[in-house]
Amino acid sequence: MAKSTAKRTARKPAVGLIMGSQSDWATMRHAAETLEALGVPFEARIISAHRTPKRMMSYAAAARGRGLKVIIAGAGGAAHLPGMTASMTPLPVLGVPVESAALKGQDSLLSIVQMPAGIPVGTLAIGRAGAVNAGLLAASIVGLGDVKIMAALERWRARQTDAVAKAPSDEVATPHR
Amino acid sequence: MAKSTAKRTARKPAVGLIMGSQSDWATMRHAAETLEALGVPFEARIISAHRTPKRMMSYAAAARGRGLKVIIAGAGGAAHLPGMTASMTPLPVLGVPVESAALKGQDSLLSIVQMPAGIPVGTLAIGRAGAVNAGLLAASIVGLGDVKIMAALERWRARQTDAVAKAPSDEVATPHR
Amino acid sequence: MAKSTAKRTARKPAVGLIMGSQSDWATMRHAAETLEALGVPFEARIISAHRTPKRMMSYAAAARGRGLKVIIAGAGGAAHLPGMTASMTPLPVLGVPVESAALKGQDSLLSIVQMPAGIPVGTLAIGRAGAVNAGLLAASIVGLGDVKIMAALERWRARQTDAVAKAPSDEVATPHR
Amino acid sequence: MAKSTAKRTARKPAVGLIMGSQSDWATMRHAAETLEALGVPFEARIISAHRTPKRMMSYAAAARGRGLKVIIAGAGGAAHLPGMTASMTPLPVLGVPVESAALKGQDSLLSIVQMPAGIPVGTLAIGRAGAVNAGLLAASIVGLGDVKIMAALERWRARQTDAVAKAPSDEVATPHR
Amino acid sequence: MAKSTAKRTARKPAVGLIMGSQSDWATMRHAAETLEALGVPFEARIISAHRTPKRMMSYAAAARGRGLKVIIAGAGGAAHLPGMTASMTPLPVLGVPVESAALKGQDSLLSIVQMPAGIPVGTLAIGRAGAVNAGLLAASIVGLGDVKIMAALERWRARQTDAVAKAPSDEVATPHR
Amino acid sequence: MAKSTAKRTARKPAVGLIMGSQSDWATMRHAAETLEALGVPFEARIISAHRTPKRMMSYAAAARGRGLKVIIAGAGGAAHLPGMTASMTPLPVLGVPVESAALKGQDSLLSIVQMPAGIPVGTLAIGRAGAVNAGLLAASIVGLGDVKIMAALERWRARQTDAVAKAPSDEVATPHR
Amino acid sequence: MAKSTAKRTARKPAVGLIMGSQSDWATMRHAAETLEALGVPFEARIISAHRTPKRMMSYAAAARGRGLKVIIAGAGGAAHLPGMTASMTPLPVLGVPVESAALKGQDSLLSIVQMPAGIPVGTLAIGRAGAVNAGLLAASIVGLGDVKIMAALERWRARQTDAVAKAPSDEVATPHR
Amino acid sequence: MAKSTAKRTARKPAVGLIMGSQSDWATMRHAAETLEALGVPFEARIISAHRTPKRMMSYAAAARGRGLKVIIAGAGGAAHLPGMTASMTPLPVLGVPVESAALKGQDSLLSIVQMPAGIPVGTLAIGRAGAVNAGLLAASIVGLGDVKIMAALERWRARQTDAVAKAPSDEVATPHR
Repeated sequence: MAKSTAKRTARKPAVGLIMGSQSDWATMRHAAETLEALGVPFEARIISAHRTPKRMMSYAAAARGRGLKVIIAGAGGAAHLPGMTASMTPLPVLGVPVESAALKGQDSLLSIVQMPAGIPVGTLAIGRAGAVNAGLLAASIVGLGDVKIMAALERWRARQTDAVAKAPSDEVATPHR
Repeated sequence: MAKSTAKRTARKPAVGLIMGSQSDWATMRHAAETLEALGVPFEARIISAHRTPKRMMSYAAAARGRGLKVIIAGAGGAAHLPGMTASMTPLPVLGVPVESAALKGQDSLLSIVQMPAGIPVGTLAIGRAGAVNAGLLAASIVGLGDVKIMAALERWRARQTDAVAKAPSDEVATPHR
Repeated sequence: MAKSTAKRTARKPAVGLIMGSQSDWATMRHAAETLEALGVPFEARIISAHRTPKRMMSYAAAARGRGLKVIIAGAGGAAHLPGMTASMTPLPVLGVPVESAALKGQDSLLSIVQMPAGIPVGTLAIGRAGAVNAGLLAASIVGLGDVKIMAALERWRARQTDAVAKAPSDEVATPHR
Repeated sequence: MAKSTAKRTARKPAVGLIMGSQSDWATMRHAAETLEALGVPFEARIISAHRTPKRMMSYAAAARGRGLKVIIAGAGGAAHLPGMTASMTPLPVLGVPVESAALKGQDSLLSIVQMPAGIPVGTLAIGRAGAVNAGLLAASIVGLGDVKIMAALERWRARQTDAVAKAPSDEVATPHR
Repeated sequence: MAKSTAKRTARKPAVGLIMGSQSDWATMRHAAETLEALGVPFEARIISAHRTPKRMMSYAAAARGRGLKVIIAGAGGAAHLPGMTASMTPLPVLGVPVESAALKGQDSLLSIVQMPAGIPVGTLAIGRAGAVNAGLLAASIVGLGDVKIMAALERWRARQTDAVAKAPSDEVATPHR
Repeated sequence: MAKSTAKRTARKPAVGLIMGSQSDWATMRHAAETLEALGVPFEARIISAHRTPKRMMSYAAAARGRGLKVIIAGAGGAAHLPGMTASMTPLPVLGVPVESAALKGQDSLLSIVQMPAGIPVGTLAIGRAGAVNAGLLAASIVGLGDVKIMAALERWRARQTDAVAKAPSDEVATPHR
Repeated sequence: MAKSTAKRTARKPAVGLIMGSQSDWATMRHAAETLEALGVPFEARIISAHRTPKRMMSYAAAARGRGLKVIIAGAGGAAHLPGMTASMTPLPVLGVPVESAALKGQDSLLSIVQMPAGIPVGTLAIGRAGAVNAGLLAASIVGLGDVKIMAALERWRARQTDAVAKAPSDEVATPHR
Repeated sequence: MAKSTAKRTARKPAVGLIMGSQSDWATMRHAAETLEALGVPFEARIISAHRTPKRMMSYAAAARGRGLKVIIAGAGGAAHLPGMTASMTPLPVLGVPVESAALKGQDSLLSIVQMPAGIPVGTLAIGRAGAVNAGLLAASIVGLGDVKIMAALERWRARQTDAVAKAPSDEVATPHR
């Protein structure tokens, strides 16, 4: 990804990509890259539930009015950003559990997915895979009302299918999971 | 909920509510009731990834063409229904981990949420809370293109907020979590 | 405990005892009873991080000005109330993980205790024991500036020590842990 | 193992060794090497439940007709390949949980082993040990109808027993577990 | 199941169904019933790795010579029966983790599945589902050399598929998972 | 067990059986019964690490001088009694994790077994099985210097072996694990 | 932090910062640095519950008389220092679970937080975050009776809020969590 | 430790130190060093429950007759060596869970500690700490009948207590836990 990923395009964003700290960007940039690859306009922001609660409230409260369709929120440890954002907007909120140092994201996962009845967060896998998938799921939601994005998603999925080799190779460097 | 919840209305369904077995209905009916309360048309089906794999494939492959917008899939144990459905449709798929006998849904949760990069499932909480929230999240996704549903969702949320008492009461029977 | 525990005394409260829902009262009343036994004035409120986020913000923001010294917050599942309250007040916040249905409070515990550096929550044990201990810890904090409460706490602890029998008895009905 | 392990012999394969991605080969090659050492003909294929569901269905449906006796399936995370393959063939299916990045294969293990009643997967240990053992178990199953393979397996086991030293040595480099 | 299930038929057994104690029979009888339904001759024995280690050794050492093809071993807690049996016979051994009192079979599962490289145990799910599936997997292994059993297995699977209802019903009593 | 189990015999005790509270007696009485069956003289005491720390120190410091050979300590939750006792006596200390309400003894187990290098606690299983086994292990330690006790232990083990039935029975009421 | 952090200032300490071993200092120094940054006088001591139980008792028993207001105790594995200290002083005790080698602090966390009703420990997160937060929470407790410290805490929190960037940057080196 | 640790002295061994494989020696040598430091004669052997079951049986059956007093058994993963050895000797058996690759010794711990009622294993901590402590606990058991060893143990413990520094130091290299 080029340096410019963090600074987003002129098109009005459909997806708000928020995260608890700069350190989460190493994970969440995979969501950004995926959205970019699918042509989904987005904005990326650092919003800490704990260190900037007012910024979180303003962002969540204004999100729908600003035209956002989906919010992707990534956080680690006692990860409150996705659930608290969901409590303040009727937009769909997707949560990405960032891998934490000691508990490897088990705390992040449970803090995000185990929301009580009434306020949902659509939760993805811990870490990079979850960030990529948050981008894909956001695209499929936005794509319900945008045939170009849905078509891009289908091309992306077809390419993914075609890229699976028939048999394992001893020569290929093992990619990271 | 009246007996008729399992048999759905004449309106074309926007949400496909599928589950691995009849025993999952005790959990998933809470998704049905929520969709019903919000006026989101849906259909409910039993589709077992393991016992009826062909039914699953047909359902997933046809879902978008039939006009479905979102699929909610509930399953327990080694729960493959949400992920496999997601592998065969570009529609957003939401997963509900049904509480399992021995491991209390920990197996269900990990089998659904830990999808590899490429095929997302938006996962909700284990059990009843997750089923209710799958209904709410589906409504918010469908509501992006349907102002009536979005309005119903906002009213539902406002009523929920208003229903929270100021102080705990010794007289109130404790509702189940 | 008499019915009147939930409605508190005329003395200005030193401790704010808040919880996410009426169902948490079955656990949190043990904190109330402990504070009452030690003569610590308190108020009990239902404040849901997810269903009443604005109420939570108002409460947390006003707490110090209203003369509260300590806040005890109990919640279950993806329990965000203690951490979010702590993000909006410099007062000490104590968290009680309420036992959840499927994961038995493991989710509640991690959601409360694994706070990132910057915003602390002093976390107690899951369930009744944690609620009792939140009351005791709040009393010891308030007691640092109130010799009567510290004396009451020491008497309570001495009585507790004296109440431990020398040897186990087959006749005694086993109390619940 | 020589480079040629991934490309298999001319003999008709008795074991189908499938895995979700090239990255799983680092683990699953230990199954291949074990089968090779025991003279069990096999084929190795990449088949992703999520990225290539149709390839999976074709492979599973054709397996018995093509003369395969056993299928070994390795996958990580929300690992659906073993269970889904088992849902489409009456052949014995053995599952190898590949170690995942964040949860160290706990998700892989539960996703494979916790199959509901009706569709079995014989599950081995997480990682390399499981892959070796899948090869051994497949050999013992094939060996029930092939005395040469059963004899080879018994020789392999006898050599293994003989190779255990009497006492630990400070000089020996510690082999990886 | 009739009382006579525990006392087996005159046909020479192909499957040895062993368990650590009488208390495991409540789980393991589901394996017995499944084998019976598929026409697989078997014998059922109590063999405790810890309380009757010599019986275990004799049984395992003699198993192949007596004509057994597969051993199913069920045990709970620190469950050593499956692995120790596998260490003394080249026959395929399948393990069923019986649900334990405190840890709900998590100890049983890890004690059975995490075998070191060299001695495999094909492990099934915790509890009843695992017992049923051990019966099915044993049948598919025996069926590789017995067309009648393989045909019975296929009919069983077809009936299972046909038995899945199209839609959930409010009238049906929820069966246990 | 007769009511008199908690009040012990005139013989000088060889084993000190201590526990954190009266509620632990339901578990620890199984240790008492086992010691009684083997003729090992013992005393039973309630000693709470947290509520009676001074009693714990006195007991541990005096234990060896009073002629005790082994201490069995049972406790639940954040179970500090076994480890703290071991820190104040060179006698062998055995720990029994009592099953806790929310975490089912996982907290008790880790709090007892994960002692740092320098102060050992020989830990048994969670709950009743662990209590029985603490009695047996204490007997085998005391038996190293008392042939009568070692002989009683061997008879007990032989009877246990003889009591294992050959085959499971549908008629036998399932004993609890 | 300068080398002099471990040797403390002339002002009478308000916080006793104790830890089980020198190796815990790598974690607990973050508590020291936080207290230092907020102007809270403290002392740092090594006190091992298991290796120096008498030192622990003396320290805990004398703490209040010496003018300490709060004790912060850090330990790993079967971490008994926080709970045992709390059993011998009415002062508020805060516990920091130090990350352990094998179980990554899960044992430390449960050994500290799961205290039985009667003796509370206010527990913070595993590792560095918990140590920083123990410092902050101690400051807020001491600050209830010291307006300078409360003011320092509020400035610290305001600076923390101001330091959160608006958007993630590809240029910034990712700080450790 | 000198190279000669693995080859033991002429004195008749009181402790049998056995382990499942050469790779366990990296952990178990800490038990050997501890026994050596305390003057407890021992022998070290590799005995694999799974790869050399007959060697295990012979060793366990002969242990008491050969004059051994205690057996220390270390193993990892599905660790059956301690429990199986205990099933074949009335001597006290101590188990050391060796840290496993994927699950970090959680499988080893549960496989060793969760023994059913009837056959005890005194279990120590995972890894190095557990190995050191197995040596100490064996010494305290042997020391009950050997005043020289008990005296050596007491000196060792006193030195350990004396070696704890008063305060943490920034200069000291952090020792590994």
